[in-house]
Amino acid sequence: MYIPTYDDVEAAAARIAPHTHVTPVLTSSYFNTLTGADLHWKCENFQKAGAFKARGASNAVFGLSDEQAARGVATHSSGNHGLCLSYAAGRRGIPCTVVMPRTAPQAKKDAVRGYGGRVVECEPSTSSREAVFAQVVAETGAEFVHPYNDPRVIAGQATCSRELLAQVPGLNAVIAPIGGGGMISGTCLTLSNIAPGVKIYAGEPEMADDAARSFRAGHIIADDAPETVADGLKVPLKDLTWHFVQRHVTDILTVSEEEIVEAMKLVWKRMKIIIEPSCAVPVAAVLKNPSVFKGLKVGIIITGGNVDLDKLPWMQG
Amino acid sequence: MYIPTYDDVEAAAARIAPHTHVTPVLTSSYFNTLTGADLHWKCENFQKAGAFKARGASNAVFGLSDEQAARGVATHSSGNHGLCLSYAAGRRGIPCTVVMPRTAPQAKKDAVRGYGGRVVECEPSTSSREAVFAQVVAETGAEFVHPYNDPRVIAGQATCSRELLAQVPGLNAVIAPIGGGGMISGTCLTLSNIAPGVKIYAGEPEMADDAARSFRAGHIIADDAPETVADGLKVPLKDLTWHFVQRHVTDILTVSEEEIVEAMKLVWKRMKIIIEPSCAVPVAAVLKNPSVFKGLKVGIIITGGNVDLDKLPWMQG
Repeated sequence: MYIPTYDDVEAAAARIAPHTHVTPVLTSSYFNTLTGADLHWKCENFQKAGAFKARGASNAVFGLSDEQAARGVATHSSGNHGLCLSYAAGRRGIPCTVVMPRTAPQAKKDAVRGYGGRVVECEPSTSSREAVFAQVVAETGAEFVHPYNDPRVIAGQATCSRELLAQVPGLNAVIAPIGGGGMISGTCLTLSNIAPGVKIYAGEPEMADDAARSFRAGHIIADDAPETVADGLKVPLKDLTWHFVQRHVTDILTVSEEEIVEAMKLVWKRMKIIIEPSCAVPVAAVLKNPSVFKGLKVGIIITGGNVDLDKLPWMQG
Repeated sequence: MYIPTYDDVEAAAARIAPHTHVTPVLTSSYFNTLTGADLHWKCENFQKAGAFKARGASNAVFGLSDEQAARGVATHSSGNHGLCLSYAAGRRGIPCTVVMPRTAPQAKKDAVRGYGGRVVECEPSTSSREAVFAQVVAETGAEFVHPYNDPRVIAGQATCSRELLAQVPGLNAVIAPIGGGGMISGTCLTLSNIAPGVKIYAGEPEMADDAARSFRAGHIIADDAPETVADGLKVPLKDLTWHFVQRHVTDILTVSEEEIVEAMKLVWKRMKIIIEPSCAVPVAAVLKNPSVFKGLKVGIIITGGNVDLDKLPWMQG
């Protein structure tokens, strides 16, 4: 297992700069009054392809040798990583295959194809996904880019906190959502190296709280098939992300489904930005734990804005 | 009729600076590719109280003498002007009364009250509104701040284009929605004085196209009760706004209800910002008229982001 270093982060920042945005940092007097904290919203919903995962995917794709690149890249993802890998591969002009369950939303499949990627469908089970994915790699020789348990991906995600620190001096804490742990690991990688005094919090849905339980138990606990509105956060920690989480995270704060949806809607209403349910999780965690954040200067990583506008969570009641 | 001058705009800019945001200008490679134009989105949806009308309202409120201010301000509006006047009055700590039809959405009434304003209900007819409003003014001595036909309001709205010109040099055209014509008049006031080569377009709903018909006829045509999803654009031109529109507007482009909703949804989806139907109107006009805008550097005034998240127009089908 190769643990990425801060040198990898600096290399990633240079490599992805032509292909990603330096995203803006917003503030809201409404949320500052509500929480008593000085909140700085790092808006990766404005990132290319609508999510921070464009960073890790671009770092992986543009770090390939020409020979590797010619065979293309592949992954399994029904979420933003598939979309962002397809985006990055399209920028380099190489093939990209994304294995997705046939039950995945049509909009997600269309989005992968919209950036030039190929969708290969599997049955909605782990065994089918693994079998289909192995076949894709055998046929194409494509380079597997894991959604989060990959040093290239983590180094790419780490560029987000690197940017945030340059944009907002003097932060006391950063909070981000945790699912597989790619963004949190990147945050740990950057902050532990260049701003070790900044506390790192993760927000997680109660309904998929395997990372919080892992954190307290001291070893990885993986749930089988958790269900949460924060659909980017269902996946478990893996060895590489666990490495960072167990060493550098201050605490993992969990929130209910209702708290997630309320926080998401409140951000839409007051800040006029579209955020997806997964990145409402850290917002909900800050709202729920004022005593933790009151008086602090806090960076919140707004991880993405890819939502199905025809199926908003507050419309489903 | 006092016609505001560019000196009034400069005075307004200084007066409202402590109470309003310098809103960001966004760009979108997706929309630039789609239209062939170089679009610069002036995001007044991020303005205080969620709309550009915070500018005109703040200019009116903070321009009052202490004696006038003590008696408060009043208006009739079921939209952003009522909200923004309440916001500005709250900042100055003076009373604000907004006359609204009893049938107006509860959320709008709550929003006025949320900023400290008082809502007085009338029947949903012009005669009732005028009678109730006259009574409010008689009882309070409050200063009437008209939603758009007021030189203080127009000078305030004019600060938006003044900011935009400073943020984006070399614009060829600016487009904004037209209803009563407050924002367009402010745009005319600024551009005709400091950037007379920049063309000024207005976008208007076909279903409430009284300004377009007025423009072609050469005199004000006012419709009785037009119905459009762009609910901020139902009101007619008045003498002061007509003064600017007839002299400085290049063209008024109309769009259908379907085009407005499609443009609104596409902005939400691709730019991850919340815009209200009224400001989707100029976006739809640019999408509909590529030959007019292709190759030009265009400012689009995104006028506001106050929508009812429980009643989105694409949900009502």
